[in-house]
This record gives sequence, structure tokens and C-alpha cells, in this order.
Amino acid sequence: MAMRDLALAKVYQLLEPGPVVLLTTSRKTKGQDRANVMTMSWHMMVEFEPPLVACIVSGANHSFAALRATKECVIAIPAAKLAQKVVKVGNATGAETDKFAAFGLTPLPAEQVAAPLIAECFANLECRVVDTRLTNRYNMFILEVVKAWRDPRQKNPRSLHHQGYGRFAVDGRILKLASKMR
Amino acid sequence: MAMRDLALAKVYQLLEPGPVVLLTTSRKTKGQDRANVMTMSWHMMVEFEPPLVACIVSGANHSFAALRATKECVIAIPAAKLAQKVVKVGNATGAETDKFAAFGLTPLPAEQVAAPLIAECFANLECRVVDTRLTNRYNMFILEVVKAWRDPRQKNPRSLHHQGYGRFAVDGRILKLASKMR
Repeated sequence: MAMRDLALAKVYQLLEPGPVVLLTTSRKTKGQDRANVMTMSWHMMVEFEPPLVACIVSGANHSFAALRATKECVIAIPAAKLAQKVVKVGNATGAETDKFAAFGLTPLPAEQVAAPLIAECFANLECRVVDTRLTNRYNMFILEVVKAWRDPRQKNPRSLHHQGYGRFAVDGRILKLASKMR
Repeated sequence: MAMRDLALAKVYQLLEPGPVVLLTTSRKTKGQDRANVMTMSWHMMVEFEPPLVACIVSGANHSFAALRATKECVIAIPAAKLAQKVVKVGNATGAETDKFAAFGLTPLPAEQVAAPLIAECFANLECRVVDTRLTNRYNMFILEVVKAWRDPRQKNPRSLHHQGYGRFAVDGRILKLASKMR
């Protein structure tokens, strides 16, 4: 696989900037493993190491039940060139569609979870649900990233930031300022 | 004041893209109200309306105790031109410094909370803490935005996305794609 290990201590540098991400799950349905993928912007870092991430997955999403039942998922981070696919994934439901096949996304086996990586994304984070105390109240899950992957062929990827109704800001220039802040 | 009302239903469009924000608090110290400000990237939307926001405020931050005690804060969103100040705020502690005075940020009275707005920021969100169930475990606060302000003089502000150690992606080009996603 072209994806390479990424140190867990560096995961926050991918999620802290607030990119739109894809979240994959896999669940046995009628005896067969069935993978699904959704688009997500409501996530944040909670802890550096081990990396903990909070996210909101609406109960209206087909992925919600799979995430709650299997307690596993992958967070895949798309670069801007995948914007059209990201929007299509967000506008379709996994109840009716195999979104990987329909939108040309390639599932790859993960190492520690049943949910698939996405080959086209520049980073993939294998996650386990570690806290569901706020799931009933806010649809919030606390995830631990147990394995992280980075595609070294995608240099300086620009991520997408959703501003509502299909409007995205794409990462532009990079500012480097002297800072003690990790 | 130059700030104008922003509909609460539109607040998510400001925070969902994952900008670096400034968080202000105000707390009585030796009989005097004392305002403080910190830099924050670990936040996410939790609900559209009323707008709920989750955030992580490290116990190492001077603001943590003020937020826990007063249950009020303001989330102020800086455009890229404030990057130097954002970094200075993040590298100083409110225990020793009046960061507003030291870094040239202008506190303005809020309408519903004691914490100040920041005049230089293009948006200001007055917040109340509504859930502290995960505060002890993760330093997480759930905030409700009770009043939102937008500076109409700052057109198309570009926000900042921290990638670690003073490296920021600045919003670049805007992509508009047909989407049903709110």
C-alpha cells in the first residue's frame, strides 16, 4: 500500500485546522460486511496523545447506527481535488447507495478496524469509540486514533473548509510564525 | 458599535470551517472585573439551533478557571491580518499579562455576558456554558451561543487554520458546488 505510517503524536496537525473529512464504517448486513462513507465537518481534537477526537454524527445519517454498534470508523482526509466527490458523498445516503462504487472512491483494508481506508485521501485515521456518554444527548462520539496513515505521494495537500450550502474555503497560502504553541 | 447582529442560525457557517479563534472571559479578581483572552483551535459545532459549540480549554490555561466559575465567554474570530496577535495571545499567560493592552486588542462590552467582545475580530459570539459533564474528564465545555455579532466592514475575511508550531493555512480560493447539505 502506498500509505505510510504517521506518528500518532502528529495526528492533531491534520485535524486541528478543521478540514472536511470523510468517515467510513463497516457493518455486517445480511451476513455480509457492508462499508459506508459520510461527509463530516463537526469534529475537533480532544487530546494530543493518545490522539482523542470528538465528532458529531447525526442520527439521520446511515453511519450513526453502524458507528454506535461497531464502535469503529476511519476518518479519511480529502484534498481539494476531491471536492466534487466529497459533496456527492454528503448528498447521498448509504441506505440506498454503495457510495464507494458510485463516486469512485477506493476502499482499502485498515490494519486495526473493520472500516476501510480511502485510497484517494491523503491521510487516514483508524479510530475506536472510547466514550459514548454524550451520544444520546448530542450524537457525540469520542474516538481514539489507534493507527494513522499518510500518502507520501500527495505533497502539501490543500484541505477543504465547509462554510455551508456547498461553499468551501480551500487552504491558501501558508503562514509560518515563531510560536511556542504546539 | 460597528458590529451588527448575526442570525443565530448562521453561526455554524463561521465555526464549521475550523478557524483559529480567540476566547475571552471576565472574572472578578480582588473586587475588580478582569478580562482575559486565549487562543483556541479545539472547537466544533454540536447543533445548528440554538447553536451549540463544544470546546476544549486546557486546565493549564488561565482561562479554564474563569470559564468554569463564570460559565460565560465570548468566541471572537480573527481574520488573517491578526495572525501575529493571535500567536502572541497564545504564547502569553493571562496570569501575568493584560493581553488586551499588551497586544493591542480592544475589548468591547457584550450584551448578554460579562466577557468582552474583541473589536478587531470580524465576528463575536457570546456564549454560556450549558453542559460540563465532560469537563473533568476532557476539559470539554458545551457552550450555547446566545448572541452573535458580525463586523460588516470586514468583507470576505480569510480565517486562519493552525497546523501546529505557528504554521497556519490561510483561507484561499472559494469553491461553490451544488449541494443539498446545509
